Amino acid sequence: MKVAVVGANGQIGKHLIDLLHDSKDFTPRAIVRNEEQLRSFQNEGIQSSLVDLEGTVEEIANGLDGTDAVVFTAGSGGHTGSDKTLLVDLDGAVKTMEAAKQAGIDRFIMVSALQAHNRENWNLSLKPYYAAKHFADKELERSGLNYTIIRPGGLLNETGTGKVFAAENLSRGSIPREDVAKAIYSSLTEEHTVNRGFDLISGNDPIEEAIKRI
Amino acid sequence: MKVAVVGANGQIGKHLIDLLHDSKDFTPRAIVRNEEQLRSFQNEGIQSSLVDLEGTVEEIANGLDGTDAVVFTAGSGGHTGSDKTLLVDLDGAVKTMEAAKQAGIDRFIMVSALQAHNRENWNLSLKPYYAAKHFADKELERSGLNYTIIRPGGLLNETGTGKVFAAENLSRGSIPREDVAKAIYSSLTEEHTVNRGFDLISGNDPIEEAIKRI
Repeated sequence: MKVAVVGANGQIGKHLIDLLHDSKDFTPRAIVRNEEQLRSFQNEGIQSSLVDLEGTVEEIANGLDGTDAVVFTAGSGGHTGSDKTLLVDLDGAVKTMEAAKQAGIDRFIMVSALQAHNRENWNLSLKPYYAAKHFADKELERSGLNYTIIRPGGLLNETGTGKVFAAENLSRGSIPREDVAKAIYSSLTEEHTVNRGFDLISGNDPIEEAIKRI
Repeated sequence: MKVAVVGANGQIGKHLIDLLHDSKDFTPRAIVRNEEQLRSFQNEGIQSSLVDLEGTVEEIANGLDGTDAVVFTAGSGGHTGSDKTLLVDLDGAVKTMEAAKQAGIDRFIMVSALQAHNRENWNLSLKPYYAAKHFADKELERSGLNYTIIRPGGLLNETGTGKVFAAENLSRGSIPREDVAKAIYSSLTEEHTVNRGFDLISGNDPIEEAIKRI
């Protein structure tokens, strides 16, 4: 299974690329936004494509073409303004969905944010970001793609524990980015996650089991 | 017909409130965001409600309760950042749709922007704003409400000419805010506009006729 990782140069993206690259079942394609990132992945022997999420659907579709699944883990990040949140996290995500369909890809995994589906639980200090994620997720639900929406809690850089809680609604919690990448990896071929969304935080269940039981 | 005008203190809103107030067929309710605006409308004998579009759906529903139609012509405006575009123009609009349904109101008119439905024609200098309007309009189309989406060209403060072009797709153009208000007014009870969206610029057709022929 060929997997396009949009936002491959992000921290979750890098963990996921490593997992996919080390597996016999998957071939990753790193979707990145600049030449330096492109060369860096190519130097590691990883297929990669240059895609600007502020570009057209056609341009994005060219970057995804020939893969079997798309993971969207890109984000404009905390150092840019809400204009980029609108153009990348929301519209860029929706263009990627349209591009996936155009390229004949039907599997799509979105990395969202804990409780993005429940407006009353949005993180108050990040409300505009949550609004963007909320509406991107809603578009995905109606896209016709075989989607999975993974909504992790506060992201940590520490080493993963391999153990999580995953459920439709969880209260506040955090999770290492490495464990989010593992949950994406486990979800890719787990039929049971198709057309489902779930919150994800550190917990007691081995990731693969937690994903199977969602 | 009781019509809640969300964003009544804006320039289109004020024109619309005047038209509705002068008509025997309509009773306007001015939905505004601060006490001063509230008193100003009340002093003119116009029913009004205080509503914060960054508040909850329930709070917005309270402000709309008892009306038969909602016109959404609010906007965070050019002097605030894209964080408010996300929270007011997008999420505030969608909360107003949810509030209308909660209050049992089924008619909803959205003031959008020329070509907001066609990403490739978005005004480049206003792309984040267009993205917000685009996704608010998409949510409205799927809301189950009897919607009309009016997408005016560049808004002018000059006196209306009473003549427009209205069609599903128009190229760049402008229109006085007074004429946009008249088009909203004509659309309110025109069955033919239900579940339709159209671009609107200054042109040759009397507004009422143009709306009937959409």
